[in-house]
Amino acid sequence: MAQEKVALIGSGNWGSAIAKIIGKNALECPEFDNEVRMWVFEEIVNDRKLTEIINTDHENVKYLPGIKLPESIVAVPDLLECVKDATTLIFVVPHQFLNGICKTLLGNIRPDAKAISLIKGLDASSTGLRLFSQAIAESLNIEVSVLSGANIANEVAEGYFCETTIGSNRSEDGEVFYKLFNTPTFRVTVVDDVAGVEICGALKNIVAVGAGIIDGLKLGENTKAAIMRIGLMEMKQFACTFWTGVREETFYESCGVADLITTCAGGRNRKVSEAHVITGKSFDELEREMLNGQKLQGTLAAHEVHEYLKAKNMTEEFPLFTGIYQIVYENAAPSTIVEGHGRKLPNRL
Amino acid sequence: MAQEKVALIGSGNWGSAIAKIIGKNALECPEFDNEVRMWVFEEIVNDRKLTEIINTDHENVKYLPGIKLPESIVAVPDLLECVKDATTLIFVVPHQFLNGICKTLLGNIRPDAKAISLIKGLDASSTGLRLFSQAIAESLNIEVSVLSGANIANEVAEGYFCETTIGSNRSEDGEVFYKLFNTPTFRVTVVDDVAGVEICGALKNIVAVGAGIIDGLKLGENTKAAIMRIGLMEMKQFACTFWTGVREETFYESCGVADLITTCAGGRNRKVSEAHVITGKSFDELEREMLNGQKLQGTLAAHEVHEYLKAKNMTEEFPLFTGIYQIVYENAAPSTIVEGHGRKLPNRL
Repeated sequence: MAQEKVALIGSGNWGSAIAKIIGKNALECPEFDNEVRMWVFEEIVNDRKLTEIINTDHENVKYLPGIKLPESIVAVPDLLECVKDATTLIFVVPHQFLNGICKTLLGNIRPDAKAISLIKGLDASSTGLRLFSQAIAESLNIEVSVLSGANIANEVAEGYFCETTIGSNRSEDGEVFYKLFNTPTFRVTVVDDVAGVEICGALKNIVAVGAGIIDGLKLGENTKAAIMRIGLMEMKQFACTFWTGVREETFYESCGVADLITTCAGGRNRKVSEAHVITGKSFDELEREMLNGQKLQGTLAAHEVHEYLKAKNMTEEFPLFTGIYQIVYENAAPSTIVEGHGRKLPNRL
Repeated sequence: MAQEKVALIGSGNWGSAIAKIIGKNALECPEFDNEVRMWVFEEIVNDRKLTEIINTDHENVKYLPGIKLPESIVAVPDLLECVKDATTLIFVVPHQFLNGICKTLLGNIRPDAKAISLIKGLDASSTGLRLFSQAIAESLNIEVSVLSGANIANEVAEGYFCETTIGSNRSEDGEVFYKLFNTPTFRVTVVDDVAGVEICGALKNIVAVGAGIIDGLKLGENTKAAIMRIGLMEMKQFACTFWTGVREETFYESCGVADLITTCAGGRNRKVSEAHVITGKSFDELEREMLNGQKLQGTLAAHEVHEYLKAKNMTEEFPLFTGIYQIVYENAAPSTIVEGHGRKLPNRL
């Protein structure tokens, strides 16, 4: 049997945590080649090349300090050298780099390669919304699975028990990815619903903005749980309305309810939104003060989703997403977040 | 059209919070008689009868101080006077009193009365497990709906936005209960799944014990979310295995995911379990120290569920419930909670 040869495209915080997992599985599992190449955008850290540090000290001192990587992980500064002969490509890069990476890869990967995307977000353009798995699949004409779950990178790297979800349209790909990613403390469930899994990861941060607003208003645990639940239902409704083949059960998986719980408990989207309510400062101002000017994913996603819904004249069918958009971008009072969720009639009778 | 006459059987913290809601709806909604009788177990508070205080000051100073009740609420110390001519009975009493109450009511209520139970827990006996809605229905030969949700009583009484779920097997009952309970800040969803709704309320505290153990172990947000998710799935599996007509979607409602989030964020079950891990003291000892000797609902439910599963030789199919039982009652190490949740194969392929 030919071995699977894995290329990890990305080496940030999450990519490095994943390197620890797949590097170990590649060594232990005969289906995989022992070497996993990891593409590292070369930088100089303490007068040494980052690739050299990783390959000699087996630690990504810049993005995941304190965690040893398996010796199977080989840092490679050249993207094409990284993917050469690879049968399995793992995309875990900031989404703004994806387009350029795909252009470089086009024509330079095995035509039968399979991919899995760990990228969070939505590919929004004037023509609409696209999943990053779709973007990769369309650019490279390969099959793309996705992985998403309640997976704060540093906690995964420490080996604390958690779960994750892989969405895969081809069962043979799902089986390979299960073997590559599953460990006793990183429990994989495979579902045949790529869009559902990926949309959870893309939309959860909108709900976290909502959760932060509730925290800022000090409305208590009932209200926060209600907003999280309504948010989960709008995520499900959004996915089921605009993509085909989405399964309702996917939202019970780690990518759905669990990731939402984790994201609404901590995290920057929740925190900055809470500060917005307490201080009255704009999100722009708070991003400068609290995030060194970095933009929140949740407010960006709220904007992208709102534009999409507006174009389809469907904003009223998503009252929470719309309410959060209005608070962030139209100066609506934070307390308006709990309005508009009524149902005129008992809804299953 | 004959008006619905409502009797509220119970006047504790949750019963009084509910009195505020239904008392207002009874006044505003023409379907209901303006008077709602509330059964109050008579006590003397500050040298006055509690019923007299409620009926003159419109406040349950003992169980919900600081909240005004609508003038429609009439406290009645005699149970049979409370339910006389009532078409709608609301049960919101501690479960240990239910059996005696039903014995008193038998033959003294309208035969066409409908009921709704807000009682939490399971009716465990040597013959097995029964829902309290089933216990009421069998005792009194009436139709019984249930209400359960992410509803911390004091937050509901303050009027903070939240949601709740009513399970009702007859659509005409569901419509009446919707009108009686729904308000702009207490949003009701009606589902035709009595067992699913009630089982959520009965089992959530087991999962909260698990969440507290994770907090005590300081395993972080990923692990806590994973345990909550696995707990929700075991709640669903338990309900679907042992009751008929349970709907998978019920667990997405406020009674399911939202109540679980609220219960695992705060609450005594979580807190005492966290203290067990940190201090190493037994649950008995902590109940004496932290709860004045009151027993936790979560550990009790874990015991009842375990006995039931053991009798059916099915403990292995519920690894989280079983693991929590072993930690509480068999001195298993708290860290064992994250063991046993593996799946041998990708599970939907």
